Amino acid sequence: MSTGKIFSRLATNSLRLSTLVHSGVPRARLTGPSLLRASRAFVRLGSTLPPRANFTTPTEQHIRDIRQLLSSSHSLISTIDGSATADELKAYNDDWMNKYHGKSPMMVKPKSTEEVSKVMKYCHDNGLAVVPQGGNTGLVGGSNPVHDEIILNLANLSQIRSFDPVSGILVADGGVVLETADNYLAERGFIFPLDLGAKGSCHIGGNVATNAGGLRLLRYGSLHGTVLGLEVVLPDGTIWNGLSKLRKDNTGFDLKQLFIGSEGTIGIITAISILCPRRPSAMNVAVCSLSSYEAVQKVFGEAKAYLGEILSAFEFFDKQSYALVKKHQEESGETRNVFEQEGDFYCLIETGGSNSEHDEAKLTALLEHLLENEFVLDGVLAQDSTQFKSLWSLRELIPESAAKAGSVYKYDVSVPVGKMYRLVENMRLRLRERRVLEGDGNPQGRIRALAGYGHMGDGNLHINIVADKYAEDLEKIIEPYIYEIVAENEGSISAEHGLGVMKAPYIGYTKNKTSIEMMRKIKQLFDPKGLLNPYKYIV
Amino acid sequence: MSTGKIFSRLATNSLRLSTLVHSGVPRARLTGPSLLRASRAFVRLGSTLPPRANFTTPTEQHIRDIRQLLSSSHSLISTIDGSATADELKAYNDDWMNKYHGKSPMMVKPKSTEEVSKVMKYCHDNGLAVVPQGGNTGLVGGSNPVHDEIILNLANLSQIRSFDPVSGILVADGGVVLETADNYLAERGFIFPLDLGAKGSCHIGGNVATNAGGLRLLRYGSLHGTVLGLEVVLPDGTIWNGLSKLRKDNTGFDLKQLFIGSEGTIGIITAISILCPRRPSAMNVAVCSLSSYEAVQKVFGEAKAYLGEILSAFEFFDKQSYALVKKHQEESGETRNVFEQEGDFYCLIETGGSNSEHDEAKLTALLEHLLENEFVLDGVLAQDSTQFKSLWSLRELIPESAAKAGSVYKYDVSVPVGKMYRLVENMRLRLRERRVLEGDGNPQGRIRALAGYGHMGDGNLHINIVADKYAEDLEKIIEPYIYEIVAENEGSISAEHGLGVMKAPYIGYTKNKTSIEMMRKIKQLFDPKGLLNPYKYIV
Repeated sequence: MSTGKIFSRLATNSLRLSTLVHSGVPRARLTGPSLLRASRAFVRLGSTLPPRANFTTPTEQHIRDIRQLLSSSHSLISTIDGSATADELKAYNDDWMNKYHGKSPMMVKPKSTEEVSKVMKYCHDNGLAVVPQGGNTGLVGGSNPVHDEIILNLANLSQIRSFDPVSGILVADGGVVLETADNYLAERGFIFPLDLGAKGSCHIGGNVATNAGGLRLLRYGSLHGTVLGLEVVLPDGTIWNGLSKLRKDNTGFDLKQLFIGSEGTIGIITAISILCPRRPSAMNVAVCSLSSYEAVQKVFGEAKAYLGEILSAFEFFDKQSYALVKKHQEESGETRNVFEQEGDFYCLIETGGSNSEHDEAKLTALLEHLLENEFVLDGVLAQDSTQFKSLWSLRELIPESAAKAGSVYKYDVSVPVGKMYRLVENMRLRLRERRVLEGDGNPQGRIRALAGYGHMGDGNLHINIVADKYAEDLEKIIEPYIYEIVAENEGSISAEHGLGVMKAPYIGYTKNKTSIEMMRKIKQLFDPKGLLNPYKYIV
Repeated sequence: MSTGKIFSRLATNSLRLSTLVHSGVPRARLTGPSLLRASRAFVRLGSTLPPRANFTTPTEQHIRDIRQLLSSSHSLISTIDGSATADELKAYNDDWMNKYHGKSPMMVKPKSTEEVSKVMKYCHDNGLAVVPQGGNTGLVGGSNPVHDEIILNLANLSQIRSFDPVSGILVADGGVVLETADNYLAERGFIFPLDLGAKGSCHIGGNVATNAGGLRLLRYGSLHGTVLGLEVVLPDGTIWNGLSKLRKDNTGFDLKQLFIGSEGTIGIITAISILCPRRPSAMNVAVCSLSSYEAVQKVFGEAKAYLGEILSAFEFFDKQSYALVKKHQEESGETRNVFEQEGDFYCLIETGGSNSEHDEAKLTALLEHLLENEFVLDGVLAQDSTQFKSLWSLRELIPESAAKAGSVYKYDVSVPVGKMYRLVENMRLRLRERRVLEGDGNPQGRIRALAGYGHMGDGNLHINIVADKYAEDLEKIIEPYIYEIVAENEGSISAEHGLGVMKAPYIGYTKNKTSIEMMRKIKQLFDPKGLLNPYKYIV
């Protein structure tokens, strides 16, 4: 059976099939509100927050003093001196999902690294706790106060400092919005080696502070490899200039690495230096249906072999995920039959390269190979930008579709690829045994769906458990069981979202005592007073 | 003028030209003895070694005790109890270039991580200093004792622990030889993301401990990005199991990063987990002559644009480097005229990809573009494995050719690419001003040649200064001037060789006081007794 035939399925709407390959258009992306609805399940965790530690309580005198340190009096707002209402501070006290609710009476937006330094020195000298805040787009409450910590927002540090088109090295303030940085690079034929759903709001300094993973990790690797240098204000106000623009420098400990993923607990990233690759001029995407998780693994291996250096994403989702998306699309009046033969699993393969003809040839050879050997049941290949977005939406609509179907317990874990789907199977078994899973002769089950999907290429699994409504007994069935099976499979309880305040208590499921002890010592070394982003990360 | 014509130069010997492209053969590489001869200039530095610190002096009782901890009594040899002669210990006390000469009375080769742990705990409890040693292939004396430190050699930790062909993740003992690991991976279609001249001897644990850069960095990035986990024995004997096999794990500080490039000063790497890419199935190489360093930069940019994801190396060398190689080849009776039109500069462009036809097309398009726009003067493209090796030898023979021409002062620095060659020009000016440079009306100049070359893609410059013989007044003209101009150009005084004992005193030329202070604190945190690899790195 020919590739042309198999890859000619999509009968309705905007997705028409062909073997032609689409070039150079970015894919659709979920926006904030969709994610917001998808994540409400975790709100309750706020009730278990740690008690306030013995830091100094901010006073009117502190506000006057700090204002003196700033070039503009508008850079500080506070409810204490009436320069702000509680409502005006809410955007900084609360996270964007409205899960975490700090009670800080003041927010500072310094306009320079020097101002950050002065504010930090003052807070350090006066025992005032501080929470650094970037775009405030995190998912674990890392950028919001827990109690009355002073909010130090980086939004006013928003300059591109330099870009060298020979080396591809960008130096920019920590408060530059990711999309702004990427647009700046796009105009010059380069790409930021990180992509996120929150790119329109998140800051590159925050990305580095949280070691954001995102959608380009498979291709460009982690920030630990691409970040070349950092400028950091330490807890006592010292400015550490580690803003190297060198790819190779073996002169002592690579200090910047400690700050990458430190979630603002040992320093505030005020600028980054990062190596940016050339922007791919051609991009293609295909989605296949498969009969088993073993087949997905097999296809992942074949994709790496056939596509080599141009494979830019390999995502997978199960039939439960796909069912949620189809239901969502039906309800939105967008019924589509994408596959002639559906499967228990699906995979999305994206390529990004410098030559569209070559990329098309490689991808076509892969797809023919997969079909001839019956590694996949069916497949579709995008022909234009609309199809490109539509195929990506099959994967990207999953969180939104799950949220629409009920209250979602969401987990973001990583495990070795071979063991990844076992977590979903174990969870399904448990939910069945406890007779809470709908279906299989249990029409009254309160769990409506259990869906598994994620970044196959990175071993990053998302588990969404859709309940009729949130209930403590349901949560007790799921947690800490989910963390236990992650630990049994040598996985991470937080693949990319970090620990923040939400997962700080659970670090022991992923890290051993020796690791945690070393981390505590490092925190103590850099921040002996514990003033920076307290109650979080390593507690 | 057609590409075919321009790229048809090599008239003599094994290099015949064509536009056909060669596939899948590794390039030639310099062997140990060549490098040995090239590096003798630094021997003198040994005379400025720091005095012995107040560590416990090893005794016969210590030897009896440590022997008890080992599964085999042969795992320890010592001159103290007569189980070894001083000559037998020489291979461990001395470095391979015969530059550094330790005086240790004993060498231990534990057979397991547990044995490393027991030995370290004993040494820690008894105040005995220890130098960890891998393949002993370093260039800065980092793996040899300075005084009587116990040598802990990792050669008996030499097992591949696991490899997962789905994810490409290799887990192996720290004492596995790099070439052994790469051969193991080659059989499975994968590649170790690091390549070095010393690959036949160096250990992968030592590579990680020294953050080795090497020949594949441009393509696969630094070890900070590819290493996923480490197992480390800490100075007090604690085994830290950080051997993660996860690409994504955001649960706390990324501790492994501290050990990457720590040169054995805060822990002994007993195993690594590393992400290995698929092995490229096609490899090509071309060398071009150019009129200026600006042209080299221009061509580097064009190569990145045209070759994108398949560019695997971009090396450059100046006409002085090429003159040394030609002279060496003439003296060896291998006269070749590679270029019809020679230039002031040369660049070597290597591609590695998954499809030889596609790669050839991309490279040909680049070369046509370069010629049509007169970015290059001339160019040659390898057609088979012999030509592939021959073209690489133009670059790789430089150190050997320099060594043959006289006593060589060698420097390995990195600076931003745009400023790279300025260092050579400044040095040339200085040598002329001091009237020590041969030529330009100064036939008696004691400096016979000044050659600049290196890894353009990594900003890594090698400067070789060839003198008639080593002389203190000459060295004083060169140093610390060379470090000063590196510092002025925001560079690193050690791009990839590390600090060891040789460059430890010079760290201040690259790192500021805040950095060095943080480093000292980290060393103190992990190794408060200062027992591990003393006198080196951060002193």
